[in-house]
Amino acid sequence: MSSFDSRVKAVEWSDGKLRLLDQRVLPAEVSYLDFQTAAETATAIRDMVVRGAPAIGVTAAYAVVLAARAAYTADADNWQDLIQKDLTLLAAARPTAVNLVWAINAMQSLFADINGDPVATLLDKARDIHQQDIDANRRIGELGANWLGEVTGILTHCNAGALATGGYGTALGVIRSSWSSQQLRQVYANETRPWLQGARLTAWELMQDNIPVTLIADNAASHLMGRGEINAVVVGADRIAANGDVANKIGTYQIAIAARHHKLRFIVAAPLSTIDRDMKSGDQIPLEQRSVDEVMQWQNQRTAPVNCVALNPAFDITPAALIDAIVTEAGLIEKPTTEKIQALFSKP
Amino acid sequence: MSSFDSRVKAVEWSDGKLRLLDQRVLPAEVSYLDFQTAAETATAIRDMVVRGAPAIGVTAAYAVVLAARAAYTADADNWQDLIQKDLTLLAAARPTAVNLVWAINAMQSLFADINGDPVATLLDKARDIHQQDIDANRRIGELGANWLGEVTGILTHCNAGALATGGYGTALGVIRSSWSSQQLRQVYANETRPWLQGARLTAWELMQDNIPVTLIADNAASHLMGRGEINAVVVGADRIAANGDVANKIGTYQIAIAARHHKLRFIVAAPLSTIDRDMKSGDQIPLEQRSVDEVMQWQNQRTAPVNCVALNPAFDITPAALIDAIVTEAGLIEKPTTEKIQALFSKP
Repeated sequence: MSSFDSRVKAVEWSDGKLRLLDQRVLPAEVSYLDFQTAAETATAIRDMVVRGAPAIGVTAAYAVVLAARAAYTADADNWQDLIQKDLTLLAAARPTAVNLVWAINAMQSLFADINGDPVATLLDKARDIHQQDIDANRRIGELGANWLGEVTGILTHCNAGALATGGYGTALGVIRSSWSSQQLRQVYANETRPWLQGARLTAWELMQDNIPVTLIADNAASHLMGRGEINAVVVGADRIAANGDVANKIGTYQIAIAARHHKLRFIVAAPLSTIDRDMKSGDQIPLEQRSVDEVMQWQNQRTAPVNCVALNPAFDITPAALIDAIVTEAGLIEKPTTEKIQALFSKP
Repeated sequence: MSSFDSRVKAVEWSDGKLRLLDQRVLPAEVSYLDFQTAAETATAIRDMVVRGAPAIGVTAAYAVVLAARAAYTADADNWQDLIQKDLTLLAAARPTAVNLVWAINAMQSLFADINGDPVATLLDKARDIHQQDIDANRRIGELGANWLGEVTGILTHCNAGALATGGYGTALGVIRSSWSSQQLRQVYANETRPWLQGARLTAWELMQDNIPVTLIADNAASHLMGRGEINAVVVGADRIAANGDVANKIGTYQIAIAARHHKLRFIVAAPLSTIDRDMKSGDQIPLEQRSVDEVMQWQNQRTAPVNCVALNPAFDITPAALIDAIVTEAGLIEKPTTEKIQALFSKP
C-alpha cells in the first residue's frame, strides 16, 4: 500500500464471505457486515449498505461467487440454471448504476468454460474485477490530476471515493492524486442531500486520509464559486451514455450549470465500465426514484410536515455539453462526443 | 379576513405582550412564545424564533414599544436616552435583513414629537407598520401574479410567506394570489438547507392553506426545470441594493443561475422597506455567517464527522443581471437597474 492509498475499504472478500462497510451508519459508526448469500447482498445494495457505481459492480462480482457456491452445493449438475434467479435479483437491485449489470455479465461470461466446482474460477475473476477497478482508479486519478494542474479549491458532489469503488476512488482518486502531487490546497464537499453522502462519507473518507476538506450545504456551492474559493469541480458517474451525457447523483446537473456559469472546469471521473454504449444519450438512462422518506426525515426525526407531498429523484443527467472532460483509465477526453467516447474503447 | 388570507400568524401584539410563533420547532410543534422585553426579543430574532426580513421588521417595531415601556417606567424623563441600549441590541440581532434597522428607524423618527408616556403612540405606529406590511404583501402578490400569468409549476426557495412577514407573504404572496386566481397548478418548495425553511415552514404554511406543494431537495431543482415541471421561480429578499442586486437565503443565487440556464423567469418579491439605497451594489451588503452546527447536525443528531471543518454562509447575492423582475408594493420592474429602483420611490 503506497502512502497515498486510502485507508478506507468498502468491499472485501474475507474467509469465504463478502464483507461490506455499512455506509448507512457512517460517520457515527464504523461497522462491517458479512454476507453469505446473493439475496442478502442484493438487499444490501438496494438499502445502500454499499453504494457508488464501481463499488456496486465489485460487490456484485463477489455476490455471483456466493450465488455460484450456493447453486453448486444445491445441485452440482444444474448450478448454471439454479443461479439465474440470484443473478436476476442482483441485477435489479439498483437501476441507474450500470457497473452492476456490467460485473454480472463479466462473471457470467466465464460460465460456459467452467467444469466442476465454479467457486475458485469465479473468485479469481471477482478479485480480478476488484483489482482492475483499483488500478483503473489510480490511472484515472493520475490523468485527471495532470489535466487539472494547480487548483486552489476543488468541489466534489456525493461520494466517488474509496467508499464508492474497489478502493482509491474516481473523483476522489483525482483529488488524492492532485493532493499527493501537491497541486491542490482545499477540497469542498457538497453535503449532498438528501442522503448526505458528502457530509457522511466524503468528509469522513478524506479526513481518514488527512486531506483538507470543508463541508458545505449544497446551496453554498455557487456562492463559493462566485467568490473564487472553488476553482474546479470533479464528480463521479453512475452511468455514461454513448454521447457523453452523464447520470450521477441528483444535484450534479445543478453544479455543472453553476460551473459553466462561472467558467470553471467540470470533470467527470469514471472507469470504462461506467460507459453504457447501448444508451445513445442520457434520456435513455433509467433514473431511480427513491423513497421520499429520505427527504422528509433524518434518521427517525421528521424534517417535514406529516402528509407532505415530496419527490426524491436520486439521479439526474448532466448533458455532455456542460462537461469539460471525462477521464477514464483509457484516457481523458475533452468536450465529450460519441466519436471520442467510442475511441476510448479502441485503444490498445 | 378574505378566503385567501393565510391562517398563519408569525407575529402578534396581544395583551401588552409580543407573541411570536416559534419557527424553530415547526412543523413538529405549533408553539407561541410571549415576550415582554426588547432584549429577549433580540435574542429571539438572533435564534430564529422569528425570521424573514419583513417579519423581523414588524417584530422589531413591537420590540421598540416594549423597550419604550420599560425605559419610561424606569425614568419617565430620560426614557429616550435609556432606550438607546435596547435599540442598539435589536439592530445588531441579524446583520443581513435591512427591514430590522428600517423599522427601528421608523419608530425612532417619532420620538422627538412624543410628550409623556410614549407607549400608545409607538404601539399605533408598530401596528401601522404591521398593517402596511400586510397591505404591501397583498399588492405585491397581485402585481406578481398578474405578471406571471398562467404557470404550471413554480419553485420557491426558503420561506418568504406569512411566516416571514406581517402576514400573507412576499414570494408566497405572489403564489397565494396566483393560486387564488387559478393561474397556478403546483408549487415546488426547495427544502432549503441547512435550516430547512422550505421543508419545515413553506411546506407547512402552504399545507395550512390547502395550496398544493411538493417538497424537493435543493439538488433536484435544476432536474425538474430541465424536465419542464418547474416553469418559474419566485423568492423573497433580505436586502436589495440600489442597483437591484438581491441578498437572500443561501442557494438563491444557484437557483437564479439554473433558472437563467433554462430560460425560466426568476422574480423577487419584497416590500420597499427591503431596498437599501445606501448599498450601491450587492457586494456592500453584509452577509451573515451562521454556526456550522446548522450544517453538521440536525437537532441533536450529527450528520457529519466529529471535528469536520465546515462553512455556513447564510445568505448569498443574486446579481440584478440574473433577475427578470422585482415586484414591490410600488410596482413591478423588469430587468432591474439603479434608475428603475430609484423610480419606485418617487411614485405617488
